[in-house]
Amino acid sequence: MSVKKLVLIRHGESIWNQENRFTGWTDVPLSAKGVQEAHAAGQLLKAEGFQFDYAYTSVLKRAISTLWAVLEETDLQWIPVEKDWRLNERHYGALQGLNKAETAEKFGDEQVKLWRRGFAITPPALTPEDPRFPGHDSRYATVPASQLPATESLAITIERVIPYWLETIRPRVESGEKVIIAAHGNSLRALVKYLDDISEEAILELNIPTGVPLVYEFDDQMKPVRHYYLGNADEIAAKAAAVANQGKAK
Amino acid sequence: MSVKKLVLIRHGESIWNQENRFTGWTDVPLSAKGVQEAHAAGQLLKAEGFQFDYAYTSVLKRAISTLWAVLEETDLQWIPVEKDWRLNERHYGALQGLNKAETAEKFGDEQVKLWRRGFAITPPALTPEDPRFPGHDSRYATVPASQLPATESLAITIERVIPYWLETIRPRVESGEKVIIAAHGNSLRALVKYLDDISEEAILELNIPTGVPLVYEFDDQMKPVRHYYLGNADEIAAKAAAVANQGKAK
Repeated sequence: MSVKKLVLIRHGESIWNQENRFTGWTDVPLSAKGVQEAHAAGQLLKAEGFQFDYAYTSVLKRAISTLWAVLEETDLQWIPVEKDWRLNERHYGALQGLNKAETAEKFGDEQVKLWRRGFAITPPALTPEDPRFPGHDSRYATVPASQLPATESLAITIERVIPYWLETIRPRVESGEKVIIAAHGNSLRALVKYLDDISEEAILELNIPTGVPLVYEFDDQMKPVRHYYLGNADEIAAKAAAVANQGKAK
Repeated sequence: MSVKKLVLIRHGESIWNQENRFTGWTDVPLSAKGVQEAHAAGQLLKAEGFQFDYAYTSVLKRAISTLWAVLEETDLQWIPVEKDWRLNERHYGALQGLNKAETAEKFGDEQVKLWRRGFAITPPALTPEDPRFPGHDSRYATVPASQLPATESLAITIERVIPYWLETIRPRVESGEKVIIAAHGNSLRALVKYLDDISEEAILELNIPTGVPLVYEFDDQMKPVRHYYLGNADEIAAKAAAVANQGKAK
């Protein structure tokens, strides 16, 4: 039996994480700190001897830049990279662009927590006329209109992430290729929920820290046998707590 | 009739350009100046309103980093990028790693000029045992052994670049997609020779400057109708002259 490995990494801090705004599919760049986080993650993977044959990421630059920094640090710029909208962050509908603390003051902590963490609860939807609607963006030109979201819950996010995992990424991991996925808080949470069969309640409390490589190991039947974060445990816990607190009013 | 456009860009200065060493397939990074050149090229393309649907590059990081900088500046990180060894620089055989000026002192300007610019002349070949032989590098693991070079002339480089152009890139340009190729002095020279039907003698004197976008326009039959560099003409001429002078002893 050979252990099959998969590395997940959530993008480093973006300029809207910094401004505490709902981002979703808005294509904002990494902050200077986010760039630094991504390079540190790459250095850690290199120090731990990780190699990759293939990389997946979303079509959003904060995930792509994170991946590129990792590939630079691990001397793997040459490996194939596949970018797909199905690894995008959850679409936050009409909340995209709003400040999280302001939204919490206006609607209350509980409503914001529901929008952010309610399993099947969707934020207010975008209208097709809204300039933020993905149908206006050429990167989604080949996506069937019926699949383009105007808002998403985590449940809806799962419905696009898991088919992509099953049809595209999983066979590659199963064949023994070493794969890295650079993506987003909620697209990775969708995958982790599936892999570890986490309940709808428990996934609500699971926070994936930014810029920390999360390693999954599978047996020959692609059953996850263990997973662990690379790096300092205290720093990782502090990062996860920071994510959980973003939605609070103060 | 719609004009079909293709943009070629030679990578910015690498640390071995700076040290004036024969690089070939050695995977050296851009210098600080090279990074700057790549970003400037991207800014120029953005200012001129260029958009791309698809990008091609080699499996060498100086070309990949150049492309990434261009995609960052043009806000196109999300487009598909295909990396292929057939866009690599010409393989310089056993000269790889040697200083050009020292090599010229030892063998004479004429021999070096022949190695650098002789159409069908190959530098001394690497032995398969040489650690520099591409067979030892996992990025070439899927390339048939019979195709892996131990040294290359420009003629041999053409034999791999043009089939890749004809089979893979050209159909995409022909279908109307806007394509950028980030590659190397000799792989681009191979393509330019083919596109403009340049003689073996004339191609010897054609120097493609680093980090300057070269735009080709084709008619509906994919006949090149014109080509031009973007940017300041004097600066471009100075850059091309600098490339031509690299092989001189002093």
